[in-house]
Amino acid sequence: MSHKVCVLLSGCGVFDGAEIHESVATLLALSKAGANVVFTAPNRNQHHVINHLDGSEMDETRNIRVEAARIARGNVLNISDVDIDEMDALFIPGGFGAAKNFCSFAFEGANASIHEDVKALIQSFHNAGKPIGAVCIAPAVLALSLGKGTMTIGSDAGTAEALESLGATHQVCPVTEMLVDRENKLVTAPAYMEDAAIHEVAEGIEKAVRAVLELCE
Amino acid sequence: MSHKVCVLLSGCGVFDGAEIHESVATLLALSKAGANVVFTAPNRNQHHVINHLDGSEMDETRNIRVEAARIARGNVLNISDVDIDEMDALFIPGGFGAAKNFCSFAFEGANASIHEDVKALIQSFHNAGKPIGAVCIAPAVLALSLGKGTMTIGSDAGTAEALESLGATHQVCPVTEMLVDRENKLVTAPAYMEDAAIHEVAEGIEKAVRAVLELCE
Repeated sequence: MSHKVCVLLSGCGVFDGAEIHESVATLLALSKAGANVVFTAPNRNQHHVINHLDGSEMDETRNIRVEAARIARGNVLNISDVDIDEMDALFIPGGFGAAKNFCSFAFEGANASIHEDVKALIQSFHNAGKPIGAVCIAPAVLALSLGKGTMTIGSDAGTAEALESLGATHQVCPVTEMLVDRENKLVTAPAYMEDAAIHEVAEGIEKAVRAVLELCE
Repeated sequence: MSHKVCVLLSGCGVFDGAEIHESVATLLALSKAGANVVFTAPNRNQHHVINHLDGSEMDETRNIRVEAARIARGNVLNISDVDIDEMDALFIPGGFGAAKNFCSFAFEGANASIHEDVKALIQSFHNAGKPIGAVCIAPAVLALSLGKGTMTIGSDAGTAEALESLGATHQVCPVTEMLVDRENKLVTAPAYMEDAAIHEVAEGIEKAVRAVLELCE
């Protein structure tokens, strides 16, 4: 029987939402492995909207869940409507959205706060003994929610230090690889935290997706 | 020496812009093959903005090029600034944006008109003897620009008939395959014109990308 994986999206676009390449690489790897995907996102506005052509902030508001539906090509569950019992695992692509819309890590690092709905979702999967995958900057959301876990965000020393301040243990990892914390059932990969080509990012994410599926009971 | 491929995007999101999975599958295949990518898009507003969660039209305007930058993760050339001499090939992912923002095919089928800047870009690549790849509904943009060519949009009879009315010859093709018109150097693949899984769509697109690169002189 195929596994059902909940994919948590933070919008649609690297600078204010879910990183698009990472999200699609995740879906591609899950599809190749025969897994079913259920999308979810918080039903509230993004922290802000960034013009991805010039980097400026736009005078607009966009809803995280509505924008995530661009990646999902359709339905995205409100984060409060996810039935954990029906899911086998959780996977969180990166992008600044993870660090701006799920929590304030992009602005406050180790002093960041996290939205209760995101924290509750992550803790529910973890407490149910279900594996969680997170790539790029998304491991910061795991550290903020769980206060523990061995994880990687690649090789950026400042970010690694912030994760350690939050109670996590950081390990350096190349972009085409991933890291498994078997005790906590956490799988992480650097993705675009490294300056890499899309096919290298996708390779690391595919390995992370396979590791998450192997951890499903 | 690696080939330089111009990727023409129509926005960011299947219902009003470039199909995200197809665009990323294109970039992934180009990256794997060692090609360099230059993004381009028209610098004007989308036909409309669709809420991808519920399908409704939103009271917003979004610029095609600015939204395309979400997929590009950065610079997207204004379509009028593309230097054809520097490019080896053109590739056009699908999504309704190709049929709504490049031309009016989504609304008028065989009676559609096409924006002059898009038509000029396609004709310039064709007249220079450079290969063009187009997937999903994007072959309609080729038919409108060139009035000829053997191509596929998969198996949808109504769309195929409209392409034939525009002077093209249509051939049915499965989603994991692609079609090459060697005489006109056109490569097409069905992608999400078929009701398929993302890994099947990506397989057809990867084959199309490889065929385009093989046609580069």
